[in-house]
Amino acid sequence: MYPKSFQQLIDALSKLPGVGYKTAQRYAFRILEMQKEELDTLKEGLNNIQTLKHCACCGFLSEEKYCIFCQEKRDDSTIIVVSHIQDVLAIEKIGLYKGRYHILNGNLSSSKGIMPEDLNIDSLLFRINQELKEIILAISPTLDGEMTALYLSKILKNKNIKITRLAHGLPMGSSIDYADDLTIIKAINNRQNINE
Amino acid sequence: MYPKSFQQLIDALSKLPGVGYKTAQRYAFRILEMQKEELDTLKEGLNNIQTLKHCACCGFLSEEKYCIFCQEKRDDSTIIVVSHIQDVLAIEKIGLYKGRYHILNGNLSSSKGIMPEDLNIDSLLFRINQELKEIILAISPTLDGEMTALYLSKILKNKNIKITRLAHGLPMGSSIDYADDLTIIKAINNRQNINE
Repeated sequence: MYPKSFQQLIDALSKLPGVGYKTAQRYAFRILEMQKEELDTLKEGLNNIQTLKHCACCGFLSEEKYCIFCQEKRDDSTIIVVSHIQDVLAIEKIGLYKGRYHILNGNLSSSKGIMPEDLNIDSLLFRINQELKEIILAISPTLDGEMTALYLSKILKNKNIKITRLAHGLPMGSSIDYADDLTIIKAINNRQNINE
Repeated sequence: MYPKSFQQLIDALSKLPGVGYKTAQRYAFRILEMQKEELDTLKEGLNNIQTLKHCACCGFLSEEKYCIFCQEKRDDSTIIVVSHIQDVLAIEKIGLYKGRYHILNGNLSSSKGIMPEDLNIDSLLFRINQELKEIILAISPTLDGEMTALYLSKILKNKNIKITRLAHGLPMGSSIDYADDLTIIKAINNRQNINE
């Protein structure tokens, strides 16, 4: 019943994750009210992301062949491997880590049928060189994440590099009382000596 | 830290109502994964809504001078006056009402400083003719809505037309847009005469 173009916009917006018809309609009305500059920014963003590609080295988003992290001068002795592009920013915003990144762009998944060749793994193997001393697997401890970490640790074995994983345990500020069983088991097994 | 174009898209998406940075980021990643056709549909929608205007007669959205409801053959003896474009579809989807519509495109509001001249009221007065027997005010029973209905009933007095309001079967403080069909039907059937 809406004009065709408006309906088309609503339909396109309902494709966004977690957005139903009512929300898409609200978004469309908000867009309709946008100032010309605001709308142009949105349209420009949509146009420009079409030129975005994955960095040829690490898999991060980039406008050029190599991304900002690979172009920057950073510590070449460590690579943090993450599943998703967002994870890089989560680590980067702490400002502690100065090494390189590698983004798998997903996790292995038997339920979704994601196989090793669907992930950005081959290019990780190409990055192994004399300078590289440690690969840190920063993969979420979900079912698929665990499987991915296991797979990576296997293919990286015998490469003469230290392979580590982020520690699993109780999140800071949490209470043991509310932690799930698996987390408590991990925390007990990975307990650390504090009187040395 | 994201490429400029991607950051720009996230920023533009955070302008949508109720969308924070995290959600905008999720939307942006979903858009990045879109097939070319899907993305083109979205971009086309954004381009085309710039040509949308308000119907010269009733104020509904339209690609042409007159909207689909004004071009259609409908019962000219009644006009339902609503505040928002969405309200028309909420009523129309029940399939009960066959008359005309008039959209104010807002409500009077002392807090937001919306005055009668900011609303699509003048063109409603132009629509009063011999054929018109009844104006049904279908305005949400909110504070601003009540004020708007009161104002309209005053300026429409002495025009020799029956002025009715949707019955207060609608829960106070709710919005027509979100009411269920039965509630809307009740409200249409129980509409009350207010100019006697």
